[in-house]
Amino acid sequence: MRTQIVIIGSGPSGLLLGQLLTGAGIDNVILDRVGKDHILNRVRAGVLEEGTAHLMDQAGAAGRMHAEGLPHDGFSLAFDGRDHRIDLHGLTKGKQVMIYGQTEITRDLMEKREMSDGISIYEATNVEPHGFDGSAPYVTYEKDGLTHRIDCDFIAGCDGFHGISRRSVPERAIRTFEKIYPFGWLGILADVSPVNHELIYANHPHGFALCSMRSKTRSRYYVQCPLDDKIEAWSDDRFWDELRRRLPVHHAEAVKTGPSFEKSIAPLRSFVAEPMRFGRLFLVGDAAHIVPPTGAKGLNLAASDVHYLFTGLNEHYRERSDAGIDAYSSRALSRVWKAVRFSWWMTMMMHRFPDTSEFDQKIQEAELDYLVHSRAASTALAENYVGLPY
Amino acid sequence: MRTQIVIIGSGPSGLLLGQLLTGAGIDNVILDRVGKDHILNRVRAGVLEEGTAHLMDQAGAAGRMHAEGLPHDGFSLAFDGRDHRIDLHGLTKGKQVMIYGQTEITRDLMEKREMSDGISIYEATNVEPHGFDGSAPYVTYEKDGLTHRIDCDFIAGCDGFHGISRRSVPERAIRTFEKIYPFGWLGILADVSPVNHELIYANHPHGFALCSMRSKTRSRYYVQCPLDDKIEAWSDDRFWDELRRRLPVHHAEAVKTGPSFEKSIAPLRSFVAEPMRFGRLFLVGDAAHIVPPTGAKGLNLAASDVHYLFTGLNEHYRERSDAGIDAYSSRALSRVWKAVRFSWWMTMMMHRFPDTSEFDQKIQEAELDYLVHSRAASTALAENYVGLPY
Repeated sequence: MRTQIVIIGSGPSGLLLGQLLTGAGIDNVILDRVGKDHILNRVRAGVLEEGTAHLMDQAGAAGRMHAEGLPHDGFSLAFDGRDHRIDLHGLTKGKQVMIYGQTEITRDLMEKREMSDGISIYEATNVEPHGFDGSAPYVTYEKDGLTHRIDCDFIAGCDGFHGISRRSVPERAIRTFEKIYPFGWLGILADVSPVNHELIYANHPHGFALCSMRSKTRSRYYVQCPLDDKIEAWSDDRFWDELRRRLPVHHAEAVKTGPSFEKSIAPLRSFVAEPMRFGRLFLVGDAAHIVPPTGAKGLNLAASDVHYLFTGLNEHYRERSDAGIDAYSSRALSRVWKAVRFSWWMTMMMHRFPDTSEFDQKIQEAELDYLVHSRAASTALAENYVGLPY
Repeated sequence: MRTQIVIIGSGPSGLLLGQLLTGAGIDNVILDRVGKDHILNRVRAGVLEEGTAHLMDQAGAAGRMHAEGLPHDGFSLAFDGRDHRIDLHGLTKGKQVMIYGQTEITRDLMEKREMSDGISIYEATNVEPHGFDGSAPYVTYEKDGLTHRIDCDFIAGCDGFHGISRRSVPERAIRTFEKIYPFGWLGILADVSPVNHELIYANHPHGFALCSMRSKTRSRYYVQCPLDDKIEAWSDDRFWDELRRRLPVHHAEAVKTGPSFEKSIAPLRSFVAEPMRFGRLFLVGDAAHIVPPTGAKGLNLAASDVHYLFTGLNEHYRERSDAGIDAYSSRALSRVWKAVRFSWWMTMMMHRFPDTSEFDQKIQEAELDYLVHSRAASTALAENYVGLPY
């Protein structure tokens, strides 16, 4: 088989890139090592920047998002027994974020892809990119006991942190930067109405808590926990008690509880691989960078990567210019590092660190106090949260 | 002898408090363990917030400052071979800072004190505050072989980090917070015209550098150096070479060199003692808190402490209300922690840390990049640099 772009990975970034390319008349094939249902069962975050929502429009897959997504004009920072609203809309001259689950985005893009007769090959095992250093790259994979080969012009590695794309680059060609945080997030999903109409980020002596949501009837809640905690140690009752303890009283009293139907502990990591282009292979999203979820930037960064890569590929085919392709890595990384910094900063500010000094603890409290009382500092937070310009 | 307020320490905070009290008709005596010339030979920073300059006006000692001080509307952040101006005036709706050496402030306040017949007792050894837990405090000291006693209503400890005031408080009554930074500042004074009409803060792979000034003909320059470096290892030539290396080329080429007449290495420390009031003893300025010099906050924080304490004492005598005295510690500490945070942040952002990870180094670069390109972030820097409101 031959196509113009092989996309490895059928998560939201691969699907979004695929639909933008298809819309521009550029042939593409998506490969994924697992099946569609497996992908749709992944639980992920869901705070979309306006730029991300706009890309969904551009991909022609935004109908349900506009109908069911919840636009948010602000969120709360809670600490020291009180909460302080960050007025995203007022501080950023009218910008919002959209609450819409990543799983829903994936579902919408998959449906759009099927409607536009896009080729997605699921359960393609041993996917391997080849020859991207030269002018004739190709990708091999196995399916139903046979080995297949797709020749192409370019390969987009949208296959996440553990995917083959980044691992297929020689180690000497890549530089990585990493920070592991000394705690995890214990998260649950429950079909109860959210405690607040906007998100609440809480810093409490017991640790961080986040009150988020998927819809008006489905809540997503998190509490910071030790990395070595086991799910089995966290009954629903223990979770609800701990969540309420970390919230200001008026919120704690308003928490509606119910049985959780998903419960997991996720580690927090910052990771960046440089560069993001290796000849005719491009890394996109989690394949190149991971952020802790505190700033809700993971999916949004993947989307801006997709924007830069699509722009470059479109220029290549439409205008016979490689300027956009050549600039992809530096453009993407410039925005990536700003979001990595922001996510790191929010993580450092909102969590309790096991080995922190009393001085550092006081600095954290002083920072929160300054942040919510300074319009300039609140604006800096808000402009990052709604997303810096592409 | 009896007076209303005994002030321990004849540095700028003690002198400023003394003159504000004298102006309000409140008797005070200043004690210092060393002589006038010794105090005037101390080399200190000299970037004054508007609030500090206003207190000099209020003390009636601002004539020479207004005539000879240099108002600055901005400063430069230099990194990655370029410099970026922070427009303090534009970002803070017209605020400025004043460049005027701390030594000059001390001199002006001493002259004012002499003119107003204020009592300053120099070379008073073994100064000791007593009875501040009760209603009849007094201070003892030795001079010319005799022990003296001054009875008073209140004692103001303006005697710096190493002074007796904080050390005379029982350890159990005080909580301290401290951070030591793993480098020092090598500073020189030279009678050469400054390389730039505004200050330059530089972050370079070799470390931090600061181009400051005392006047249009006297420069004050610093380079970050290892804590265990010796002055003897730093010839003037080596200093000038290292300074130029750390500046963008156009500045490096403009540096005028000449013999230094002061050269010293200072460690960097953050320190806060809580509370700042113990019965009838008040800690003021460096006696209660130290900031690294990066944000130019040391003298300005001492001045805001003086403002809060003077206001409280004035209310006590004029309005027979102890509300201001009772609020002194919490009011002062609220502003102190904001400035401690700001100084810590500027220090972390502008220096190279010996054991930093590659990830943390990239975060520092991303922060600088974001800071100079975001109006909101630049405004947050500017509003702290010119001084948060009292």
